[in-house]
Amino acid sequence: MTKEELLQEKEALEAEFEKIKAAGLSLDMSRGKPSAEQLDLSMPMLDTLNSKSVLKSENGTDLRNYGILDGIPEAKQLVSEMIGCKPEYVMIYGNSSLNIMYDQIARAMFDGICGNTPWSRQGQVKFLCPVPGYDRHFAITEHFGIEMIPIEMRPDGPDMDAVERYVNQDAAVKGIWCVPKYSNPQGIVYSAETVRRFANLKPAAPDFRIFWDNAYAIHHLYEENQPEIPEIFAECEKAGNPDMVIEFCSTSKVTFSGSGMAALASSPKNLEDIKAQLTYQTIGFDKLNQLRHVRYFQNIEGLREHMKKHADIIRPKFEMLNELLTNEIKPRGIGNWVNPLGGYFISFEALEGCAKAIVAKCKEAGVTMTEAGATFPYKKDPKDSVIRIAPTYPSLEELKEAAKVFVTVTRLVSAEKLLTENKN
Amino acid sequence: MTKEELLQEKEALEAEFEKIKAAGLSLDMSRGKPSAEQLDLSMPMLDTLNSKSVLKSENGTDLRNYGILDGIPEAKQLVSEMIGCKPEYVMIYGNSSLNIMYDQIARAMFDGICGNTPWSRQGQVKFLCPVPGYDRHFAITEHFGIEMIPIEMRPDGPDMDAVERYVNQDAAVKGIWCVPKYSNPQGIVYSAETVRRFANLKPAAPDFRIFWDNAYAIHHLYEENQPEIPEIFAECEKAGNPDMVIEFCSTSKVTFSGSGMAALASSPKNLEDIKAQLTYQTIGFDKLNQLRHVRYFQNIEGLREHMKKHADIIRPKFEMLNELLTNEIKPRGIGNWVNPLGGYFISFEALEGCAKAIVAKCKEAGVTMTEAGATFPYKKDPKDSVIRIAPTYPSLEELKEAAKVFVTVTRLVSAEKLLTENKN
Repeated sequence: MTKEELLQEKEALEAEFEKIKAAGLSLDMSRGKPSAEQLDLSMPMLDTLNSKSVLKSENGTDLRNYGILDGIPEAKQLVSEMIGCKPEYVMIYGNSSLNIMYDQIARAMFDGICGNTPWSRQGQVKFLCPVPGYDRHFAITEHFGIEMIPIEMRPDGPDMDAVERYVNQDAAVKGIWCVPKYSNPQGIVYSAETVRRFANLKPAAPDFRIFWDNAYAIHHLYEENQPEIPEIFAECEKAGNPDMVIEFCSTSKVTFSGSGMAALASSPKNLEDIKAQLTYQTIGFDKLNQLRHVRYFQNIEGLREHMKKHADIIRPKFEMLNELLTNEIKPRGIGNWVNPLGGYFISFEALEGCAKAIVAKCKEAGVTMTEAGATFPYKKDPKDSVIRIAPTYPSLEELKEAAKVFVTVTRLVSAEKLLTENKN
Repeated sequence: MTKEELLQEKEALEAEFEKIKAAGLSLDMSRGKPSAEQLDLSMPMLDTLNSKSVLKSENGTDLRNYGILDGIPEAKQLVSEMIGCKPEYVMIYGNSSLNIMYDQIARAMFDGICGNTPWSRQGQVKFLCPVPGYDRHFAITEHFGIEMIPIEMRPDGPDMDAVERYVNQDAAVKGIWCVPKYSNPQGIVYSAETVRRFANLKPAAPDFRIFWDNAYAIHHLYEENQPEIPEIFAECEKAGNPDMVIEFCSTSKVTFSGSGMAALASSPKNLEDIKAQLTYQTIGFDKLNQLRHVRYFQNIEGLREHMKKHADIIRPKFEMLNELLTNEIKPRGIGNWVNPLGGYFISFEALEGCAKAIVAKCKEAGVTMTEAGATFPYKKDPKDSVIRIAPTYPSLEELKEAAKVFVTVTRLVSAEKLLTENKN
């Protein structure tokens, strides 16, 4: 476009923007939450336990009473099928994997990992943070005063050259946040090569651990196109690193976000270490909710059938967004994104220096986006370009409206930026 | 008894003991757990939520989704009625008050209380521990390296002269474990005077907090004889100490021990401080289980009716034990206990130096008792005399058998002790 054309375009967009503002919208693309329609899918789970149910585990334990620190055997089995590891690697917790991750960092900080000096007494410790990433991961490490080092995300996972350099050379590097499948927010799936390079790290620190947040293990959007990644524990064992990974997962986006079942998986040695601390913290988590999940899904097939129904609800939302961006943004060269095959987000990369302005202008027009910068440690996006789009919660109609606003605003802010650059 | 009579008695008891051993019993009076019959009482609660239920809070929130860090309003209301405080003082957590207490200590250690330096950076901090007390309280403080100072329990609560001396003079004293009603294990109810002296403490440390574990607030054994204690927050406000108490409670022994609803209560200032940390730890706890409780009980009247049914089941067990001890132990002057009006335990005080021997011999005879010393910090009962008896879990028949063994063993060990003393 010539400067003249750009100016015309900008004026047209400004007029459109004023019209949108006048409409007084109130829309939200900020929240990685399932919609009510998705939650409805799990309502029959509530019928699995009633006053006539026998509430015993397959091992005979009365699940209404105290006991069983690490989860009922049948729930461990179900989770192991969900994430592809051995059942004996699994511990079931309460309703939130975030809580497990927080507690795991707290434990490492103040109890130490497997007999090593607690991180809090080792001077300044560090975590690697693939970016963009999950804001709540970064909030935890920041809360504990752990220095965060951003690592660039590539189409096949984190920049493994950088990861290897940090992990293998710096004993202050104690961990890395990974979302290996359908990463939050980009929807990137780690390649087999990436997973193997992770398994073959040679950490300088004996208490280095990979925090493998497998939040979207079964959250595929398509039936045909389901990428699978090598199972991390098997790869670690092959590489002689059996204790290097702690994996997290939950059914928060499978059943009920507030009342799901969260789990941790790790090697027997790590589990023993974890349980030695956990026994002070609790007598055990809600076993009836574990039973509810097991009775409802039975096994991985039950989970897969259920996830297809989720996909049917959210796929049109992702596809609509992808199509709109493809038509309106791509030809203009004012943004990039990965079209995800699963997960909960689309990560939009605007022209450098535009993310904050776009989010602010969306807000002005009645559309709430995730705060710009939120997907980076310390909320600092060095390029000010990444915007996380969360399409699942609004209805398709609302999402369409919100997405149109987003596109208009992005075009407007981009035009302003290009004009400013032209001036200079 | 003359020495001769004692010797005869001892021989007779030894013969009886051998007979008991030969019977190969396997009984358990160690566990503060409800019986299956008690758990059956709450089965209808499972019918309150099913696939047809509207799972919304009174404020309109979809309780199946993420959100609400501190509990649904109607659950706060129910808990406030249960412990007698204002609803705005209440936060609902997950299934375990022990977990809340652990987290509260962890938070004080590493985040600090209301802007004060974290306890972990204040040198050696101390906790007061009324004894005998709850082993899991002491385990938490020991785990965090907090020095524990035993405080003698009196018939009306902890020795308040000692409490005042420590708290008002030593800024290293940061807290005290209290079970104000039906204390674990003695079943002692704090007097109004004791509660008021607590409320009127003048702590040397600004970050001193009373850990008020109101575990048995509504766990009365009798309908007529229900001691009530002054509400601690009201007393603290009157005394100008609005932020000095953090209260804990749960429905673990009301509904299901593994799937109850646990809560914390404290002043708005403390709650704000707590939530500022908790927001890193979780998005929220299981709101559907909160709703289940609210729909089942509705209000304090519902809870009270339900607790009467519990009392009907466990009262005969307490009464049988009390009667047996009154007949067999009291006349011989070989043990003391408080006959509790509620709670979950009877605390038996044997002759000095006999507790370990009694517990060991019971074990030999197939009856498991709580480990001697367990009710003291560092598991050290200086007099080796306290044994916690937990009558609720076994059936009345099993309990009768176990109690008879306990009485025989206590008489035998006491006779041995008296004979040894006679010798010296």
